[in-house]
Amino acid sequence: MNTDTVRLPEVIVREVGLRDGLQGLPVLPTQSKLAWLGLEAEAGVSAFEVTSFVPAHILPQFADAPDMIAQGHAVTHAELSALVLNAKGAQRALDAGVRSLVFVLSASETHSARNARTTPEAAVQVVQDLVAQVAGHPSRPRITGAIATAFGCTYEGRIPVERVQKLAEGLAQAGVDDISLGDTVGFAGPGHVRRLYGALRRQLGDGVVLGAHFHDTRGMGMANALAALDAGVTRFDASLGGLGGCPFAPGATGNIAMEDLCFLLDELGVHTGVDLEKLLHARHELARLLPDQTLHGALSRAGLPRTLAPAST
Amino acid sequence: MNTDTVRLPEVIVREVGLRDGLQGLPVLPTQSKLAWLGLEAEAGVSAFEVTSFVPAHILPQFADAPDMIAQGHAVTHAELSALVLNAKGAQRALDAGVRSLVFVLSASETHSARNARTTPEAAVQVVQDLVAQVAGHPSRPRITGAIATAFGCTYEGRIPVERVQKLAEGLAQAGVDDISLGDTVGFAGPGHVRRLYGALRRQLGDGVVLGAHFHDTRGMGMANALAALDAGVTRFDASLGGLGGCPFAPGATGNIAMEDLCFLLDELGVHTGVDLEKLLHARHELARLLPDQTLHGALSRAGLPRTLAPAST
Repeated sequence: MNTDTVRLPEVIVREVGLRDGLQGLPVLPTQSKLAWLGLEAEAGVSAFEVTSFVPAHILPQFADAPDMIAQGHAVTHAELSALVLNAKGAQRALDAGVRSLVFVLSASETHSARNARTTPEAAVQVVQDLVAQVAGHPSRPRITGAIATAFGCTYEGRIPVERVQKLAEGLAQAGVDDISLGDTVGFAGPGHVRRLYGALRRQLGDGVVLGAHFHDTRGMGMANALAALDAGVTRFDASLGGLGGCPFAPGATGNIAMEDLCFLLDELGVHTGVDLEKLLHARHELARLLPDQTLHGALSRAGLPRTLAPAST
Repeated sequence: MNTDTVRLPEVIVREVGLRDGLQGLPVLPTQSKLAWLGLEAEAGVSAFEVTSFVPAHILPQFADAPDMIAQGHAVTHAELSALVLNAKGAQRALDAGVRSLVFVLSASETHSARNARTTPEAAVQVVQDLVAQVAGHPSRPRITGAIATAFGCTYEGRIPVERVQKLAEGLAQAGVDDISLGDTVGFAGPGHVRRLYGALRRQLGDGVVLGAHFHDTRGMGMANALAALDAGVTRFDASLGGLGGCPFAPGATGNIAMEDLCFLLDELGVHTGVDLEKLLHARHELARLLPDQTLHGALSRAGLPRTLAPAST
């Protein structure tokens, strides 16, 4: 047995393309999704957001949500999470055997109203109810409180740090396992990242794991990841090939590319468990599964650097 | 008078596209180069590498090197530098009235031999002679010692920190004003950046200004800039639209995009003197001057973020 397989990652890299990336695309067959999952898990990625429990008539892409959970667990031991927006979705997810639940709310009131027809405060209350509901279950899932538009919002501009802190306080009181901040429309820069995560770390102490979901809309994705890592973030969302455009900025790239993120972390000596060559292979196969999509990311274009010692010529 | 125009930049952003970007392209008329220079200087960029003093039969693009210096100084008060590879080029540059000279050598012996037919140590000696030669002149130019392939080289792989330190020591002893490290083929990551600049800072103290020339070959450009800024680098090369491919990695992007770099620095609250909207305008005009070139960079694609306070709806 390779000892590397039992060394725990210092940072969890979390593939969100199966949910976030596919959300706006034509339905991909379940078997193709599972093939993607299997290849990327084989490369060492240790967490995946595999689906969303929303009504199938709204997002047909996720009509196979229960299958993705059940069959996904047969494919890999990696953490497989599902996104939910409300209590009803959470119950469906629990019924399907989800072991990791991401409840997403939005720091922007306008985005919250349009995306989930609720207020940020009401959404926090739902999370509190949800955590209380599952607290006694033997199979209590991991619960992530994800705060979308935590840095800014197309409707409202920059979101004040204090507003995010207030929502995070509510999520922490609810007892979530981790809190993830989403730069949903690509507003974040490393200065803002340091201030916001620094404030949360001081506020929450070490009891809550912090996660980051960055987009590369304005080229700041890797710098933001570096800043967040320095600020104590240990869970990073990304998607293979940067799949997942931002609906508010046509043509802009969306999620940071998983392979670029892993290259960054690898260069910094941060253990993620990922094998970069296998990850690039998975990306190559993903391009075959999604022939009509433009994938992003720099590492796959340039290839891994030659890191050999000076050649004897 | 706008007080901003007299506030000194905390960080010098230095446009290298007129030299580095144009080097591999068909000859651009001098007037077009000057138009680019004027627009970008108007946007607040305070330093430019405008040409290279190499024999015109080798690089016809720079046959107008003396004109770029003389006419460039009529266009802007910004720092205009010329790149030279040897003593002969340096003399031609001085004769043309250059006020800022960039002498480039390579940390890689193989790259040094192929690019400049010399050894790194011999090149340091030339810089020492050069600085001694101009020391007494009333119009002594600013002299930058630029170390190419400071992080890695396609021929030799990673370049040891100690080798760069030794060359930097020689340049500092020669009395250069600043030392710039070039990630010529896109090998650098923020960990390496921190180690190398940290070592140089400890070694050289505050007497030598440190500069960085990063490429975005593997998507690490902005993260590297952030790491270098933290390590005390105060001069950053970049090119508008990321112009300038890396000859060793076809299809890969070359220089980091000036507009993305300035967006990063602006977000961090670092004063550069650059007006981002004017800079994006200059980029738009550059695209018209170079209709056959693919420009890079994320900011121009997504646009500046809406940073207004929450709207009263």
